[in-house]
Amino acid sequence: MMLINGVASTHISANDRGLAYGDGFFTTAKVVNGKVEFWRDHVERLMRASNKFSIELPSLLTLFTEVQTVIAGVELGCLKIVITRGEGGRGYSAQGCDNPTRLISLSPWPVHYQDWQRDGIHLGVAEFKLGLQPYLAGYKTLNRFEQVLIKQELNALEYDDLIVCDINDHVIEASAGNLFWFTEGTLYTPELSQTGVAGIMRKQVLQRAEQKAIPVALVKTDIVQLEYCEAMFITNALMGIVPIKQFQQRLFSDFSLVQALQQEIKDD
Amino acid sequence: MMLINGVASTHISANDRGLAYGDGFFTTAKVVNGKVEFWRDHVERLMRASNKFSIELPSLLTLFTEVQTVIAGVELGCLKIVITRGEGGRGYSAQGCDNPTRLISLSPWPVHYQDWQRDGIHLGVAEFKLGLQPYLAGYKTLNRFEQVLIKQELNALEYDDLIVCDINDHVIEASAGNLFWFTEGTLYTPELSQTGVAGIMRKQVLQRAEQKAIPVALVKTDIVQLEYCEAMFITNALMGIVPIKQFQQRLFSDFSLVQALQQEIKDD
Repeated sequence: MMLINGVASTHISANDRGLAYGDGFFTTAKVVNGKVEFWRDHVERLMRASNKFSIELPSLLTLFTEVQTVIAGVELGCLKIVITRGEGGRGYSAQGCDNPTRLISLSPWPVHYQDWQRDGIHLGVAEFKLGLQPYLAGYKTLNRFEQVLIKQELNALEYDDLIVCDINDHVIEASAGNLFWFTEGTLYTPELSQTGVAGIMRKQVLQRAEQKAIPVALVKTDIVQLEYCEAMFITNALMGIVPIKQFQQRLFSDFSLVQALQQEIKDD
Repeated sequence: MMLINGVASTHISANDRGLAYGDGFFTTAKVVNGKVEFWRDHVERLMRASNKFSIELPSLLTLFTEVQTVIAGVELGCLKIVITRGEGGRGYSAQGCDNPTRLISLSPWPVHYQDWQRDGIHLGVAEFKLGLQPYLAGYKTLNRFEQVLIKQELNALEYDDLIVCDINDHVIEASAGNLFWFTEGTLYTPELSQTGVAGIMRKQVLQRAEQKAIPVALVKTDIVQLEYCEAMFITNALMGIVPIKQFQQRLFSDFSLVQALQQEIKDD
């Protein structure tokens, strides 16, 4: 089911700026038993993007009501909320575009994520390098062509997912999630000031680590540094926390550090 | 008028990957007396993007026929051809997406471009910096959020257009066109290996300069180098060649070099 500006629909205007320029942003959330996990974090993310890009959100009551309509009775699903600047403007100019489009839709939760969470996955390294754009770094805009190309590379390989570096060979993230690793008791994750998406689950992991007094470091590092780590995992709002069982040739058999975080992180 | 996959329509599927990820590319052409200017260059650009991103084009006969339908009898207009990967795939993955969407549409030609071509424009420098992504540099993908943000900056200023630099402070282009300048008889334009769009009119200018044995340099340079130039102009397929009458505080009164190129460049 999809609601477009509150109305059940399957089509949008071909003049929408979301299509023309990727002029908008989105978030994707896990739905469990008719409830959106980490709803407040998703709203906060939408509000940050709304302020940054001057694209007005609907009232939170409207948003909540429409989300409830879409997810009513759903045991397990993926909720997607897309906000675009709407129709209009001449060329790139957004002048006079005061009617944003909101798309709220549901799709099935990928069931293999359950196996991934329990058994871990095999991780490689992408040849594709992420570009650098500090102004957009951290945000989940509709400009996601790079991620499509990374997934194309992944689909041709035997790996479950790939670590992606930027054009300066700094480690940034996985193909559609954030990356963490433990080395000598410290939890590391790439800093995302130049590129990458700062995910909802990444924020949760960082918060819980702080609460548990686990030392955390946001780092700019190359791939070689990962060879010395004791455990790795990737995260996003849909897959949760997924341990790495093999990184290239190297096997990890002890998931205890990652499992402790999995246990720790539940929506309040 | 808009044709979507050959059918007159105003709406596309809300699941189109052009909207979800900007998974596609486009070109914009000037229509004069029922004819597309530089049609072969536009087709060549579409074919290059099609090969690079593995998104199949319709047959050239189909494309040409549909374009003719849209522009029939039009004296002056803007033709836009958008190709997206179509619907489908799970998340970023494009697996199984074998039905690209093509949108062919017409909009009015901005009449102020005529004044711009004759009188020149006032150019400033954008605070916004373009990101770097060598893999996508030169292509006109649907990921154009940066250009929307640059135009937002321009709309709040007195300038007609802005020079945009990349995050390393190298001069790249104007807000929606390419940039050229003459210094001591040499024609300069930024090289676009890291970011920017290589426009149809840029290609024409470079070809004609070569034919006229004008020395040309594709350069990586900062904004300070432009202070010494004798003439500047910007180009795109819609505005053609537009001289700069004022760059920040500096006035240019001699348009003869730019006018010579304007005269030179006509579609064959």
